[in-house]
Amino acid sequence: MAVTLAELAKRFGGRIRGNSDLRIESVATLNTAGPHDIVYVASKKYLKLLSRTSAGAVILTEADAEHYSGTTLIVENPHLCYARIATLLNPVSECTPGIHPTAVVDKGAHIAPTAGVGPHAVIEAGADIGAGAFIGPGCYIGRKVIIGNYTRLIAHVVINSGCTIGSNCILHPGSVIGSDGFGYADDNKKWVKVPQLGRVIIENDAEIGANTTIDRGALGDTVIGHGVKLDNLIHIAHNVQIGEHTAIAACVGIAGSTKIGKRCTIGGQAGILGHLEITDDVHITAATLVTNSIAQSGTYSSSLKAGPLDKWRKNAARLHHLDEMNRRLRQLEENLQRLIEDQSS
Amino acid sequence: MAVTLAELAKRFGGRIRGNSDLRIESVATLNTAGPHDIVYVASKKYLKLLSRTSAGAVILTEADAEHYSGTTLIVENPHLCYARIATLLNPVSECTPGIHPTAVVDKGAHIAPTAGVGPHAVIEAGADIGAGAFIGPGCYIGRKVIIGNYTRLIAHVVINSGCTIGSNCILHPGSVIGSDGFGYADDNKKWVKVPQLGRVIIENDAEIGANTTIDRGALGDTVIGHGVKLDNLIHIAHNVQIGEHTAIAACVGIAGSTKIGKRCTIGGQAGILGHLEITDDVHITAATLVTNSIAQSGTYSSSLKAGPLDKWRKNAARLHHLDEMNRRLRQLEENLQRLIEDQSS
Amino acid sequence: MAVTLAELAKRFGGRIRGNSDLRIESVATLNTAGPHDIVYVASKKYLKLLSRTSAGAVILTEADAEHYSGTTLIVENPHLCYARIATLLNPVSECTPGIHPTAVVDKGAHIAPTAGVGPHAVIEAGADIGAGAFIGPGCYIGRKVIIGNYTRLIAHVVINSGCTIGSNCILHPGSVIGSDGFGYADDNKKWVKVPQLGRVIIENDAEIGANTTIDRGALGDTVIGHGVKLDNLIHIAHNVQIGEHTAIAACVGIAGSTKIGKRCTIGGQAGILGHLEITDDVHITAATLVTNSIAQSGTYSSSLKAGPLDKWRKNAARLHHLDEMNRRLRQLEENLQRLIEDQSS
Repeated sequence: MAVTLAELAKRFGGRIRGNSDLRIESVATLNTAGPHDIVYVASKKYLKLLSRTSAGAVILTEADAEHYSGTTLIVENPHLCYARIATLLNPVSECTPGIHPTAVVDKGAHIAPTAGVGPHAVIEAGADIGAGAFIGPGCYIGRKVIIGNYTRLIAHVVINSGCTIGSNCILHPGSVIGSDGFGYADDNKKWVKVPQLGRVIIENDAEIGANTTIDRGALGDTVIGHGVKLDNLIHIAHNVQIGEHTAIAACVGIAGSTKIGKRCTIGGQAGILGHLEITDDVHITAATLVTNSIAQSGTYSSSLKAGPLDKWRKNAARLHHLDEMNRRLRQLEENLQRLIEDQSS
Repeated sequence: MAVTLAELAKRFGGRIRGNSDLRIESVATLNTAGPHDIVYVASKKYLKLLSRTSAGAVILTEADAEHYSGTTLIVENPHLCYARIATLLNPVSECTPGIHPTAVVDKGAHIAPTAGVGPHAVIEAGADIGAGAFIGPGCYIGRKVIIGNYTRLIAHVVINSGCTIGSNCILHPGSVIGSDGFGYADDNKKWVKVPQLGRVIIENDAEIGANTTIDRGALGDTVIGHGVKLDNLIHIAHNVQIGEHTAIAACVGIAGSTKIGKRCTIGGQAGILGHLEITDDVHITAATLVTNSIAQSGTYSSSLKAGPLDKWRKNAARLHHLDEMNRRLRQLEENLQRLIEDQSS
Repeated sequence: MAVTLAELAKRFGGRIRGNSDLRIESVATLNTAGPHDIVYVASKKYLKLLSRTSAGAVILTEADAEHYSGTTLIVENPHLCYARIATLLNPVSECTPGIHPTAVVDKGAHIAPTAGVGPHAVIEAGADIGAGAFIGPGCYIGRKVIIGNYTRLIAHVVINSGCTIGSNCILHPGSVIGSDGFGYADDNKKWVKVPQLGRVIIENDAEIGANTTIDRGALGDTVIGHGVKLDNLIHIAHNVQIGEHTAIAACVGIAGSTKIGKRCTIGGQAGILGHLEITDDVHITAATLVTNSIAQSGTYSSSLKAGPLDKWRKNAARLHHLDEMNRRLRQLEENLQRLIEDQSS
């Protein structure tokens, strides 16, 4: 696939400086780009590399364009423009409609004629697979699961009975949707399983990373909102609700019944305890533990940063005496105050 | 399925106040319950919602029953009673005996006549699948694996050769049992694999969450005790032993050869280093790192809690100077003491 | 399989003290070993157990051999020697060449005649499976994937299109290679997917743990170096590079574009932020967060250690006031200094 720079500007906006007729064949990095590649600059610190690139064209903001004299597509948001051009030039290979002969599809399932079902997939009774959807190799679709139009399950995805996935979602390999929540009643120090009777609802345009797990609700549902993006190896417990356009990085764990607002971002390895409410537009840094509800948008952290071991060990040991240090400090303040008062009297 | 309240009281104990003949069809939440639903109150703070529920019956303790005038099942442990009623009203769909034609079962494997094997499952030679057990779609059962009676592998579970799973266990999708432990010998800064020759033994009534991994022992076995409950995305390293009725929340990692006692609870994202011994009835809070053996039952923590980023940053930076702060504090104490002594002399 | 001790010494080096003709059948632990077992002592603290072992032979260093009078194989590195003997006595069962009839192999894929493909595996067009390689049950191999000679994918491994795996690698069940990186452009608080166009390159002799995920590069590649060992449930983001012979323990997350040096070790649950550069021979302790590049080899930490909850809670609460404590400390220092100066004037 190739398009002219003029065509790109027409589709996605922006002003061309230089050769509008340049044929753009692909996106590339500054270092590897050739004369028919278009590039963008991820960070201002790379602007100095522009002088050495062989790229045919560069996507820049008006301000950054001053640093470059070659052919430029000038836009407000180069990253977004880059994403759109890259998507145009690298279309997702269309799903081949039809059911692979090795797939096991219950006759009580409904598969849209334009949907594709890969080898060794299993689809149970009552499932409904939407138009243009793709159920990849080895996926398991439980009873009465609904998969929206154009949603793609790449491979080895498990969706247990009763869950609903919206349209235009992407579920990456190994993700598990609708596993039982972790709920037990205490019977004299033995655990009795509490049946997990709810569902998982994933709304449109969501993306679920590899080996991420989303448990079904105990009663009621676990809900992943419109446009939510989940990275790999995330755990979402039963009855969690995640507001639309929230993005969560890898290895995060969210405990049961917590409700997260819209447009939040949560850094990798962060943990959020159960039964909390996090408002909209909250940002959590990596490896932070959230133990209380957050009612005020903003950025929250309990991230520590690594230092050389010897030094860290001494400091970390003191942390276990910090309350005592504070008492000593208060004692000193009082003693000194008394001394000063004694002197002035 | 429907039963009268009287029948429930007869089966599970408790005293009825109100309409014993009420037909109970399902469990529900306080908000969604209708006249044939039974509910329970998860926390005292929800007792005030009782006045607004349309539930047919409520499960309450004697004390809490004072807050409600409708039909009530009065028991000592409402959560447990709820779990039992919910289980009765939502029976696990019985495993259909027989081997799906697409399953690949070695003729040297033994499958009980009442066991079920789902589509695309693979069972190797010498495996033994117990009565009423269910090997779900796409599961892999290695050579000489033993699966106890009525154990259910939901889907996509991998159990490598030689491992033993007890009776009445549940293994959720994507769990991997018997992968190699992480063991290498150092050959001049190159790693030489140490063969992992042990097994994983999972005792009866255990539950293993989605995408949780349990490595086989290096020599000897990794042992998951009777009634242990593991949530999703947990890592259990080689030769770990977990005592009966211990429950571990999601994203926990336990390093090699550590032995955990009975009836412990471990919060999400906690980590436990290797070669430690944790006694019975120990509770670990979320995101805590356990670096030493624990000989005394009780609750242990190194959890931090998130605060607003700007403030946190300053405090966390000081943490790297805490030992120095302590020295300054000691210096002050000495100087002040000297001053006071000078004055009084 | 059985070999004499003399034969072991000949193959792997070392000096025999005692019965060279002893027939060695297997490796064992000190406690369980019998007269034809060979053992080694993992830690000096177990040397005292030597007097009670029934092992036929013990692998020891020259120095430790003084603590034992029985038949001994004296070597410089007993752990390494043990690994080699254990490997010899427990050979990996050879891959049966050929393609299982239930596997789905595109006719445009190339499978070496000595390679084995297990039941229900799926191999897409353009894939190339090397000599003696094993594609286990239920694995998915995408288009144009290259698998090197003698590499083994145990079961349920997913390798997406275009990725390259070297020779003699081991990939454990549930590992996902080449899932999309987590990349989005911000379109007025909605996320627009950035196509992930790179590959994952895994070099020779690498081992990838169960349910570990390695994302493909956005542009350019994610590279796992020669001899790298990754434990279970690790997340490697797009465009990460890991230097040769680095070993990473379970549950670690490494964010995008970070470059890790050679011969590093990274403890379990550690996190490394994106766009960092970690030099060679760096060691990171468990649960540490690395927020900055590391230019100096050595050991780095931000690990905390658990203490009893009540005490910890008070100390952790003070941490949120540490900067204020520091100000109070400085104030005290100034006040005391002034007082001392006043007195001496």
